[in-house]
Amino acid sequence: MSTRRIHVIGIGAGSPEHVTAEAAAALAEVDVFLVADKGETKDELVALRRSICERFVPADHPYEVVAVPDPQRGPDAARDGAQYAKGVADWHAARTEAYVRVVEGLPPEAVVGFLVWGDPAFYDSTIRVVDAIGERLATTVRVIPGISAFQALAAAHGVVLHRVGEPVHITTGRRLVDDWTRAGEAGLDLGTVVVMLDGHLRCRELVATAPATTIHWGAYVGMPQQELRSGRLDEVIDEVVELRARLREEHGWVMDVYALTPARP
Amino acid sequence: MSTRRIHVIGIGAGSPEHVTAEAAAALAEVDVFLVADKGETKDELVALRRSICERFVPADHPYEVVAVPDPQRGPDAARDGAQYAKGVADWHAARTEAYVRVVEGLPPEAVVGFLVWGDPAFYDSTIRVVDAIGERLATTVRVIPGISAFQALAAAHGVVLHRVGEPVHITTGRRLVDDWTRAGEAGLDLGTVVVMLDGHLRCRELVATAPATTIHWGAYVGMPQQELRSGRLDEVIDEVVELRARLREEHGWVMDVYALTPARP
Ligand SMILES: C[S@@+](CC[C@H](N)C(=O)[O-])C[C@H]1O[C@@H](n2cnc3c(N)ncnc32)[C@H](O)[C@@H]1O
Ligand SMILES: C[S@@+](CC[C@H](N)C(=O)[O-])C[C@H]1O[C@@H](n2cnc3c(N)ncnc32)[C@H](O)[C@@H]1O
Repeated sequence: MSTRRIHVIGIGAGSPEHVTAEAAAALAEVDVFLVADKGETKDELVALRRSICERFVPADHPYEVVAVPDPQRGPDAARDGAQYAKGVADWHAARTEAYVRVVEGLPPEAVVGFLVWGDPAFYDSTIRVVDAIGERLATTVRVIPGISAFQALAAAHGVVLHRVGEPVHITTGRRLVDDWTRAGEAGLDLGTVVVMLDGHLRCRELVATAPATTIHWGAYVGMPQQELRSGRLDEVIDEVVELRARLREEHGWVMDVYALTPARP
Repeated sequence: MSTRRIHVIGIGAGSPEHVTAEAAAALAEVDVFLVADKGETKDELVALRRSICERFVPADHPYEVVAVPDPQRGPDAARDGAQYAKGVADWHAARTEAYVRVVEGLPPEAVVGFLVWGDPAFYDSTIRVVDAIGERLATTVRVIPGISAFQALAAAHGVVLHRVGEPVHITTGRRLVDDWTRAGEAGLDLGTVVVMLDGHLRCRELVATAPATTIHWGAYVGMPQQELRSGRLDEVIDEVVELRARLREEHGWVMDVYALTPARP
């Protein structure tokens, strides 16, 4: 029986320099790249993907890029409860259906590739999509790890993320304040806390209780527009807030990540 | 004034395939690789470093590999208290001194390189050593991120580490049971817990209280000897314990990492 080969390729978090030998070899095997078409894609991100293909795919290997329209997500009015859950489930099903239809239309021997920003294991849904496709079609999936945004951040600042023997906690803006507070109450040391997907710099809310926390912040890390700031949270947060807003204005979008290291008691 | 260029290069966690374009370019610039000589270095790990240099350093770029003897660490009798802390501080100072002496002996224009297993930001002391050197000599340091063991693990299993919107907690064997228990008591969801540096598979101690936890385990991930196991913790832990002991016997050493995903309440 024929099985479809699918490569899920981590391409790193903003620089073609992040591409690994393994990712480059996998890129060179792909016949059809599938790209979610969200209708709002940032030009720079599309350009990065294109430049990676140009640099790493041999000139004599033809490939196609197929945009798969992302189904409309229903209005977010009911953000809680059963109706919301059903909305999400319907949306996942529609998305899977869209991909299955595209893959079925390809020659069975075509190698399908997904380019994943950063590392596919962190805050990305491609593997879940590919798993869902795998429930409908016979597939052979290979996942290739990539440099994640928090690694690019640490390297750009020249710092380690863990303190000797201590943990690193990676979370989202939405959860940060709750988790931080609860851990503090329980006397649990989360170690350095890395925050992704935070459009609101929620760490602002920690200034009052944890002013001496160290922040390492970066926007567009690894990209030509890269900006880095670090210091005591209470001393740099205003500048970071202001800078983030300005960058967003200037470039039309902003992508940032930061790490918080609590002061030693 | 002359400043010494130092590259701290993450080489990935076991496979030359993990090397990024940026790491390859940095490798090609290094004149002198410094390697900590701990007198007990595993042959395979030395061989991997050598094969990475052979593969990525251009044939016409000569380089040297200099072993820096690691100072003896005093007896570990006093593992706590002031005497222990002083022992560690003395040992760090002696180590810094050994590196400073070697670097001072090199031509000032020589580019110095450190090859770091995995990613320099996670459970590795090279950046701390280089920072200490920088307090004694003028240096210009560049850190290049690398694929970490937990990323290679997730990719090999073909899984994401986070559950939608949830955190990822990266910790050590020594802290696992305490942190897990305390978080549970506080009602704090750590998300998926990645455990490194665990010579004793401490997750065994969670079987009684959290049997339905999912474990994704891997030894020698990315290397030819790679072994993977996954499943419910209570169902696979005995096999993993037995396999780990056998592999250690067979190869003379073992390096493993795992991720624990708590069952949904
Ligand atoms: C949907 S997640 C994808 C994460 C990705 N899989 C990874 O491993 O980096 C997007 C978030 O990653 C972070 N991010 C990704 N690339 C970044 C970059 N170059 N600079 C700053 N933050 C970045 C931001 O926090 C952003 O909100
Ligand atoms: C001193 S730490 C270094 C971590 C490294 N800086 C990284 O980012 O992966 C060594 C630990 O990393 C994990 N490790 C590193 N490489 C591994 C591999 N190829 N397979 C399994 N575990 C690995 C093991 O848990 C080991 O105890």
